[in-house]
Amino acid sequence: MTHEEPQEARPEAQADTAPGGTAPAPAPVTVLGLGAMGTALAEAFLAAGHPTTVWNRTPGKAEPLVGRGAVAAPSPEAAITAGGPIVACVLDYDALSSVLSGQEAALSGRTLVNLTSGSPEQARAFADRAAGIGLHYLDGAIMITPPGIGGPDASVLYSGAPEVLARHRTVLAALGEPVDLGPDAGVAGLYDTALLGLMWSALSGWLHGVALVGADGVRAADFTPIATRWLSGAVAGFVGRYAAQTDTRTYPGDDASLDVHLAAMEHLLHASRARGIDTTLPEVFADQVRRAVAAGHGGDSYARLIEVIAK
Amino acid sequence: MTHEEPQEARPEAQADTAPGGTAPAPAPVTVLGLGAMGTALAEAFLAAGHPTTVWNRTPGKAEPLVGRGAVAAPSPEAAITAGGPIVACVLDYDALSSVLSGQEAALSGRTLVNLTSGSPEQARAFADRAAGIGLHYLDGAIMITPPGIGGPDASVLYSGAPEVLARHRTVLAALGEPVDLGPDAGVAGLYDTALLGLMWSALSGWLHGVALVGADGVRAADFTPIATRWLSGAVAGFVGRYAAQTDTRTYPGDDASLDVHLAAMEHLLHASRARGIDTTLPEVFADQVRRAVAAGHGGDSYARLIEVIAK
Repeated sequence: MTHEEPQEARPEAQADTAPGGTAPAPAPVTVLGLGAMGTALAEAFLAAGHPTTVWNRTPGKAEPLVGRGAVAAPSPEAAITAGGPIVACVLDYDALSSVLSGQEAALSGRTLVNLTSGSPEQARAFADRAAGIGLHYLDGAIMITPPGIGGPDASVLYSGAPEVLARHRTVLAALGEPVDLGPDAGVAGLYDTALLGLMWSALSGWLHGVALVGADGVRAADFTPIATRWLSGAVAGFVGRYAAQTDTRTYPGDDASLDVHLAAMEHLLHASRARGIDTTLPEVFADQVRRAVAAGHGGDSYARLIEVIAK
Repeated sequence: MTHEEPQEARPEAQADTAPGGTAPAPAPVTVLGLGAMGTALAEAFLAAGHPTTVWNRTPGKAEPLVGRGAVAAPSPEAAITAGGPIVACVLDYDALSSVLSGQEAALSGRTLVNLTSGSPEQARAFADRAAGIGLHYLDGAIMITPPGIGGPDASVLYSGAPEVLARHRTVLAALGEPVDLGPDAGVAGLYDTALLGLMWSALSGWLHGVALVGADGVRAADFTPIATRWLSGAVAGFVGRYAAQTDTRTYPGDDASLDVHLAAMEHLLHASRARGIDTTLPEVFADQVRRAVAAGHGGDSYARLIEVIAK
């Protein structure tokens, strides 16, 4: 398949799921960019049996993948027109724009799944440009490090043209569970940023806990399985209930009020100081709770703090 | 069974698991303190079929439980000597000391499972006093709010006399999954504090994410299932790997280095400011990472920050 073929017969005909339940041959796919993540993506496609074309600005990166069955495209245009969706994972949106510059004709009618990291605003601007040249555009955010690609904890968030994800779900599932976030191309990147923020909060909270129990001789290896069970059980239960509270901006504190949290936070601060552990992190929560309590919200739930964070 | 019986024939004979695999009748248990949590504990024991004696300083609290089959003890001494382990959940350790004052003879040879909130130091002091009067003592921390007692997310952490948990595991399992943290009575309370700190970190990180996606029109109810999957999957995977790193104080950053984290943190700070969202929380992590990077650790993993937190 080359870029001279009629537009309607081009990549979109290569849906990776067949009607009627028959198992199709694995669909072709192209990977642009072979850094650590792009290489992991190509490896996952190859492992799932997809004919995989690869391209990288410095060609040496393709060699190990060619040894595993990939086809190295000699140019961006050859990669774009090799067939199947084009999955891009390069340094940033500027690098992607540079790679695709002058390829507008080749891109028309193709499908680009952009897994390059960037801001919601960059994704939306790219989606607008794609629409202008007839390129089917899906933006995505990979929620795992390269070694985890294709593994059980891997998921990839997608937003943009919903029909693209529907059509190419099987091939994209080789990377991790595809999560459809709807038609606003900027949403996947925004979720990415929000989830990373949650991760850093949880990692720092976990490190604080490790420091606290470690001061009394408990190993992180003993504390951590209990900490992760706590996160995925009780804490997940809390946020599930508080989601409805933040959406409705009503914060009944019947399960645990800010007054109760604040008393327990003072215990945490005391126990931390007694062990020489930095209290910058818990002071942030304690200060926000103190302000909410001082404003008369001591009977409300923790979800009330959304009003402190998002004014 | 009264407190005049020989010590060895007293509560410890009432192990709640029978040898040889035969199912024993549900063992008796006593609950001291009928606040919201104590009431939930007594309800869970009753629901599991355990003969349950209850006592509270103000007797009216016992009435609804008596209506469900509990026996209201007329005095602390009657409660202590009713048979089976004594599960205490009162306001604080001082309140418990007050309730048990003068009951040393009745307590000798009994078993006290203390689920009252307090510091590790208070728990250790109480364990020492218990040892002095021949009271079998287990300290515990309930990792759920009262409505969750006995539910699927409920767990109770125990530390202190390990034989007490072994002997009474079945009756205690009515409250939630029992987690054995070993013989240091202070450890359960320390875990409690550390896990609450992790919870507040995660809740605040989640609220920040809700504020971020909410600014672009995404509902918390849509963001949250993805956030909790992220916490229990990829984030739990990270802390599992980093536990070994903090225990050995070696921090290879091959999955994600502090340099990479810092670049992504700047995105989070920018996206937050652009949406008018308070950045106090992410500035704490970013500042710690900046300090670690400035000290030459930009190639290390996030676990390196333990050296910033616990000096």
